[in-house]
Amino acid sequence: MAIGLNESVAVLPVDGIRLGVAKAGIRYPDRDDLALVEVREGAQCAAVFTRNAFCAAPVILARRHLSEAVPRYLLINAGNANAGTGEEGLSDALACCNEVAQLTGVDVRAVLPFSTGVIGERLPVGRVRAGIPNAFSSLHPDGWLAVARAMMTTDTVPKGVSRQFELAGQTVTVSGIAKGAGMIRPDMATMLAFIATDAPVGPALLKQCLVRTGDDSFNRITVDGDTSTNDACVLIATGARQVPVIDSIYDPAYQGLMEAVGAVCTELARCVVRDGEGATKFVTVNVSEGISEQECLDVAYTIAHSPLVKTACFAGDPNWGRILAAVGRAGVPDLNVEDVRIYLDDVCIVERGGCAPDYREERGQAVMARDTFAVRVALGRGDQEATVWTTDLSYGYVRINAEYRT
Amino acid sequence: MAIGLNESVAVLPVDGIRLGVAKAGIRYPDRDDLALVEVREGAQCAAVFTRNAFCAAPVILARRHLSEAVPRYLLINAGNANAGTGEEGLSDALACCNEVAQLTGVDVRAVLPFSTGVIGERLPVGRVRAGIPNAFSSLHPDGWLAVARAMMTTDTVPKGVSRQFELAGQTVTVSGIAKGAGMIRPDMATMLAFIATDAPVGPALLKQCLVRTGDDSFNRITVDGDTSTNDACVLIATGARQVPVIDSIYDPAYQGLMEAVGAVCTELARCVVRDGEGATKFVTVNVSEGISEQECLDVAYTIAHSPLVKTACFAGDPNWGRILAAVGRAGVPDLNVEDVRIYLDDVCIVERGGCAPDYREERGQAVMARDTFAVRVALGRGDQEATVWTTDLSYGYVRINAEYRT
Repeated sequence: MAIGLNESVAVLPVDGIRLGVAKAGIRYPDRDDLALVEVREGAQCAAVFTRNAFCAAPVILARRHLSEAVPRYLLINAGNANAGTGEEGLSDALACCNEVAQLTGVDVRAVLPFSTGVIGERLPVGRVRAGIPNAFSSLHPDGWLAVARAMMTTDTVPKGVSRQFELAGQTVTVSGIAKGAGMIRPDMATMLAFIATDAPVGPALLKQCLVRTGDDSFNRITVDGDTSTNDACVLIATGARQVPVIDSIYDPAYQGLMEAVGAVCTELARCVVRDGEGATKFVTVNVSEGISEQECLDVAYTIAHSPLVKTACFAGDPNWGRILAAVGRAGVPDLNVEDVRIYLDDVCIVERGGCAPDYREERGQAVMARDTFAVRVALGRGDQEATVWTTDLSYGYVRINAEYRT
Repeated sequence: MAIGLNESVAVLPVDGIRLGVAKAGIRYPDRDDLALVEVREGAQCAAVFTRNAFCAAPVILARRHLSEAVPRYLLINAGNANAGTGEEGLSDALACCNEVAQLTGVDVRAVLPFSTGVIGERLPVGRVRAGIPNAFSSLHPDGWLAVARAMMTTDTVPKGVSRQFELAGQTVTVSGIAKGAGMIRPDMATMLAFIATDAPVGPALLKQCLVRTGDDSFNRITVDGDTSTNDACVLIATGARQVPVIDSIYDPAYQGLMEAVGAVCTELARCVVRDGEGATKFVTVNVSEGISEQECLDVAYTIAHSPLVKTACFAGDPNWGRILAAVGRAGVPDLNVEDVRIYLDDVCIVERGGCAPDYREERGQAVMARDTFAVRVALGRGDQEATVWTTDLSYGYVRINAEYRT
C-alpha cells in the first residue's frame, strides 16, 4: 500500500560512488536483482549488522572483510538471503566476492556481500557470478535508484533520500537507499540500507555517527517484531569533496553531518514502515513522562507489537481498551494507572484509569480514519520519552507472509 | 475453527456446586450472558488474577472480597469487561454483587464478580441486576456447560473437562470450565476458568495446587501475546465428599489431586488455544536442551509470538528460516547456532546452522499439512525444557479482531 510513498523519489549522486545493476535471474524473472556499488579509493566505511544469533553467510563474511580491509565494492542480491546455509553458504558468498575481485583487480577482502530474500536455500552462485560483469559495466553515479529497485523483495516502492548541507563553503551531499518491508524491528531487521556522503570523515567518527543516527531511526521501527538474519546498514564517506576531514565531535561540521545523516536515516526508516507488508496505516507511537527512556521504549514496543492494537488500527476502531491493556502489561514497575493518559493525535481518550470524561467515540474514529496518526501515552512519572513507528495488521500482511514462498 | 473441539463436551457435576444462567441482554441478543455459581458453605476457594497493571473493576473487587471472606457465589457476565471504567466501574461491580447478596442472604464480600467482553464501556448494571433472579432460580448441579456457554465471547465452542480419582475408597471429581479464544498469553490473559472438586482441601494447599497447575497449563498458552485486564482462574474445594482433608503436600492424596487438577487445567488450556481466534492449526512449541527453563521459555515464546512463523503455519509452509531467525533473536546468551537442531514433529529440518542434509521439503510440508503438529527446538547446551501451545495467524484472526466491536 506504501502509505504516502510514491515511485518518483530522487536521489542525488554522491561524488566517489558509482552504482550498477543486472538481471541475474536469482529468483525474479526479468527484473534487476543484482547490484554493485563502487566506492572510490580512500573512502571510509562503517557498518552495523543484525544482532540475530543466526547471522546469514554474507553478514559473517562482510563483518570479516570489513575488519581486514577498506571496502571498494558492495555486492548486493535480492531473492535469496544465503542464510541458514552453513559452511556452503560462506563459500558461496566468498565465490561471488572473488568474482568481483578478479573483475576489478581489488583484494577480495575489499568486497562486501549483502543478500536479502528467502532463507535456507543455496545461493545460485553461477547466476550471480554471470551477472556481475553486467552490473559492473553499468556502474554510474546516477545508479542509486536502480539499486534501490534491484534490492526490493516484498517492497512495493524503491526508497531513497538525499540531504545537502554547507561545509567550508561547499555543498556536501548525503544520499541513502534502503529496502525492507517486513520482519522489521530493532537491530536492523531484514533491512539493507546504504548511505554515502562525499564529505571526508575519520573512521571512528563515521562509526559513531552511524550508530547514533541508526539508533534513533532504523532501531525505532517495527512492522511485526521479527528480526532478520541479514540486516545491514552501511555508511560511506568518500571524501571526494575537498574540505577538511571531520574527525572530532567538537568539529562544528560534525553537527551538520549528524543532522544530515540523521535526516536521511530517519526518512528511510519511516519509508520502510510506510511500505510495511500489508500496511494501510502509518502509526507513530510516542511514550512520554517515563522515568527512563527504556521504560518508554518498553511501553511503545508493547503497543506497537500488539496484534490486537494493530488489528484495531486496521479497522480504524478507537478501541482504547486494547491500548490500555498493552500499556498495563509492558512490565513498567509500580505503574500507577491513575496517572496514565492516552491520546490519539490530540484527542485524549484515557485518563485516571478509564475513558476520558469528555471523550466521544466519533473523535477517536476521526483520528483513526486517517492513514497516518499517532498513539501517544503519557506515563505521568518522569521526563523521559521515546518514539517508535509501526503499521497496522491487515489481511494483506497475512496474505503476503502466507504466500511469500508459494 | 476450534481445531479438534466439538460441542459435545460432558462435564460431571461436583457435589456442593450449583450453577445457573440467564439472558440479561448485556450485549448479545437472545442468548445466556449471565451466570451464577453457588458454592456450598464450608468450601475453600483459591484464585489467581491477571498481572496486567490495568485490572478491570471486577478483578479489583474480587481480589478484595476474596481476602475478606470465603466466597459463596460467583457472578459472571459476558459481553462487557467492566474494564477501564474507573471508580464508576467499581461501584457498578459492587452493585451487582449487592444484588446477589440481598437475594441470597450472604455477606456481599462472599460474592465474587467476573466480567469478560468489551473494554471501556459502562456495565449495564440494571440489566445485570434484572437477570440475577433468573440465574438464581436456574441453579442446578448440572449447570456447568450452560455456564461455559454463557461466558463465551469470541469462543466458538464451550470448554469443559472432568477427571475423577480415588480417594480413601471414594470417587472424587474435578470439573472445570473455561472461556477464552484470544488475547491469550501467560498471566491469565482474557481467560476465565472455574474449577471445582468435591474433595476437602486446606486453603493454603489449595492455593499452591492452583498456582502450580496453572503455571504449567494456563501460563503456557499464547494466541497473540496480548494479555487482558480481566483474567481469573478459580479453584474451589467444596469438601462435600466425606474423606479426610488434604492438608499437606506429604499427604499421598495430594499427588492424586494435583494430577487431576493438572489434567483438567492442561486440557482446558489446550481447548482455549484450539479455539484461538481464527486458528486453523494447533501448534505445540517444545524447546529442550536449554541451560535453564527460562531460556527455553524465552525461545518458545519468541517462536510462538512470531507473526512470520505464525503466518507460515497458516500457509502450511515449512519455512524453517523463520523459525531459525526467531530462535536467533530470543536473547539466549552465547547461543552456539552450530549446536541447535529444529524439528517439525519428528522431521529434522535444521542442524549445524543450516538445513539438515537429508531434509526434503515434502517431509516438512507433510507435517505442516496436519492441523496439529509440534515445532521442536533442541538448543544443545543443557537439560532443561519447556513447552507452550499456540496457533497460527490467519485471515480469520484479523477479521475477528478488526470487526469485534463493529
